[in-house]
Amino acid sequence: MALVVQKFGGTSVANPERIRNVAKRVAKYFDQGDDMVVILSAMAGVTDNLIGLANEMAELPDRREMDVLLATGEQTTAALLAMTLKSMNYPAMSLLGFQAEVMTDCTYCNARIVDIGAERIRELIAERNIVVVAGFQGMDRNGNITTLGRGGSDTSAVAIAAALNADKCEIFTDVDGVYTADPNVCGKARKLDKISCEEMLEMASLGAKVLHIRSVEFALKHSVPLYVRSSFSEEEGTMVVNGDHDMERPVVSGVTYTKNEARITLKKVPDQPGIAAKIFAPVAESGINVDMIIQNTRASGETDLTFTVLKGDFKRAMDIGRQISENIGAEEVMGDENIAKVSVTGIGMKSHTGVASKMFSALAAENINIIMISTSEIRISCVVEEGKAELAVRALHTAFGLDA
Amino acid sequence: MALVVQKFGGTSVANPERIRNVAKRVAKYFDQGDDMVVILSAMAGVTDNLIGLANEMAELPDRREMDVLLATGEQTTAALLAMTLKSMNYPAMSLLGFQAEVMTDCTYCNARIVDIGAERIRELIAERNIVVVAGFQGMDRNGNITTLGRGGSDTSAVAIAAALNADKCEIFTDVDGVYTADPNVCGKARKLDKISCEEMLEMASLGAKVLHIRSVEFALKHSVPLYVRSSFSEEEGTMVVNGDHDMERPVVSGVTYTKNEARITLKKVPDQPGIAAKIFAPVAESGINVDMIIQNTRASGETDLTFTVLKGDFKRAMDIGRQISENIGAEEVMGDENIAKVSVTGIGMKSHTGVASKMFSALAAENINIIMISTSEIRISCVVEEGKAELAVRALHTAFGLDA
Repeated sequence: MALVVQKFGGTSVANPERIRNVAKRVAKYFDQGDDMVVILSAMAGVTDNLIGLANEMAELPDRREMDVLLATGEQTTAALLAMTLKSMNYPAMSLLGFQAEVMTDCTYCNARIVDIGAERIRELIAERNIVVVAGFQGMDRNGNITTLGRGGSDTSAVAIAAALNADKCEIFTDVDGVYTADPNVCGKARKLDKISCEEMLEMASLGAKVLHIRSVEFALKHSVPLYVRSSFSEEEGTMVVNGDHDMERPVVSGVTYTKNEARITLKKVPDQPGIAAKIFAPVAESGINVDMIIQNTRASGETDLTFTVLKGDFKRAMDIGRQISENIGAEEVMGDENIAKVSVTGIGMKSHTGVASKMFSALAAENINIIMISTSEIRISCVVEEGKAELAVRALHTAFGLDA
Repeated sequence: MALVVQKFGGTSVANPERIRNVAKRVAKYFDQGDDMVVILSAMAGVTDNLIGLANEMAELPDRREMDVLLATGEQTTAALLAMTLKSMNYPAMSLLGFQAEVMTDCTYCNARIVDIGAERIRELIAERNIVVVAGFQGMDRNGNITTLGRGGSDTSAVAIAAALNADKCEIFTDVDGVYTADPNVCGKARKLDKISCEEMLEMASLGAKVLHIRSVEFALKHSVPLYVRSSFSEEEGTMVVNGDHDMERPVVSGVTYTKNEARITLKKVPDQPGIAAKIFAPVAESGINVDMIIQNTRASGETDLTFTVLKGDFKRAMDIGRQISENIGAEEVMGDENIAKVSVTGIGMKSHTGVASKMFSALAAENINIIMISTSEIRISCVVEEGKAELAVRALHTAFGLDA
């Protein structure tokens, strides 16, 4: 008998039929004697519809109210699953973020979990209830509703698993595990049986849509045994393990891409000490995550500064960029939403050289222009034209010997 | 400068355009210096869609989970209105039922407000915010979400107005006031400038869709100055006044009908003392409201017992009826959902006779069969075949001299 936390994503609860399937799967575990806590996302498409509705009401929708709005998506699926389980004569109860005491900071639309007072969940489990928790949402210390950012339900699941000291946390999604690349883009992609938290972290942050990045951070920090599995099959999936799990590994484990970012360039920024802080402090204060930052100094002693943000933050970031530009006397602010970031990731990179040059050559061979570059110990990312992203993924998958 | 509580119904917030109009109307009051609290319903049709979804998941959806589900409707509109006001540069903030401390009993789907700890609303008003409250929803003492039953947002509005000691409570709806009959059914219906709380109470309980019955009870009990107005015009609307407001009044003020009820008959019930209690105690315990009750004793010493419930409770009531029937040894349980209740209401009835016979004659003249009859001091109701409801309304409107 184990305590199992399962999370089902948007495609897994996209309609009544699928919610019924989730109920059956959960019930099977419960019948085996496991204690079950189920975390749900909103039905696929619902969050986007709500964002569309908000954009109809306001050019820059208030972020507090956006969270009130978006939280309805997970509230809906949690209620529907709980009533389905009850109609199957299983004891079940839904809890919203505030009821499960998922306490977050006050960063609306991108809040971080600071604590989970899982008391009520524990009580309900002790009474042998299946506890269904609305993912993605929490409450700040003033009683406001917050949400955890896109994909945040994964983080809800892992954080709740950590708080409950669960035996495992299974993330059910529409793919049957973590792949060397997105199989929709790269026909030769292969499923990985295991992946290290470190790699998963890089890949998640780079757009492997399988897991929300903060969920992997949580799993790493709290040693939550984490599995990625398919809602639509009984296959084993991918286990996300702590540390360097295999002795022999290919240099690159996976190729990922994301079209979720946009690029902002401040032109002819005075090249003075402290200027970067002046630029990025107001951006950070408004809760906007900056990903890549690149600075090119011109001969004239001025500098061009380019950074990327999530597309959802682009309008706000541009507004802030314009203010900053005025304050510091930059020449111009330019934005570009038509970019994609393509990355190769692998723990093997630590002990291998030449990965970057191989990547640049492979892209060059396909005539793909590289707009920005950034690297970490186990990852190299290139920003390219949006339309070239898929081609780049396939080229890199082949170049690094990942093809099935 | 007044404290004004305004409630907008589902058709008033049915789409982004209409929500914008509500925002403009609220802003106009606010600009005049009034303190504003706005209570919203779900977008027209949304609650029905959610109920449909629940019925797809479970034959008898769990009522606690139903409330979690339904509460999303008002959460959505509250967030959308608040963000619209903010984008117009008005200080606004949404509050859900639990945040506004709308405390209710534990009767899911039909909860009663027991207290409103309007502290947070008062604070926000004091800071000159427009406070937008999600109607229809509250929280019980265990932190569960509850809803107040169909039309409950009216009650939210009047209860919040009472708690805040507001100067007035305006209910904005898709009609421009209270009519002598539903203008969609009876072309000759006229708008009333004033109506007594007493009459409004009877008419509300009889299906005049203008006001939720408990909202009128609240207004009566707490002397809340209550107005019914149209969202789509600047007209004065109808004032709901305490007491007998006019010296000269027609005997009948209005003709109403409802198709919201269903009929259940227990056949050949043993005619013993205490039998009615045995029947209605379990019905009441399950939170089902019974409206009309009729008992006909047969020559054999047995009795047929018929009662009506809301259609939404029909399935559950039939289940309970079957159990009761077994327990007490009744012969059979029959149900009929194809009924309508037609009523005439008027304070003038207190001092006039012959109203009932006039009503029966008018229905007979149209060949409409009367299935059940019930009366109060100021009202007479007849249950008729569902398809005859509109014809009955028109016939009674003419018979009682209400035609414009």
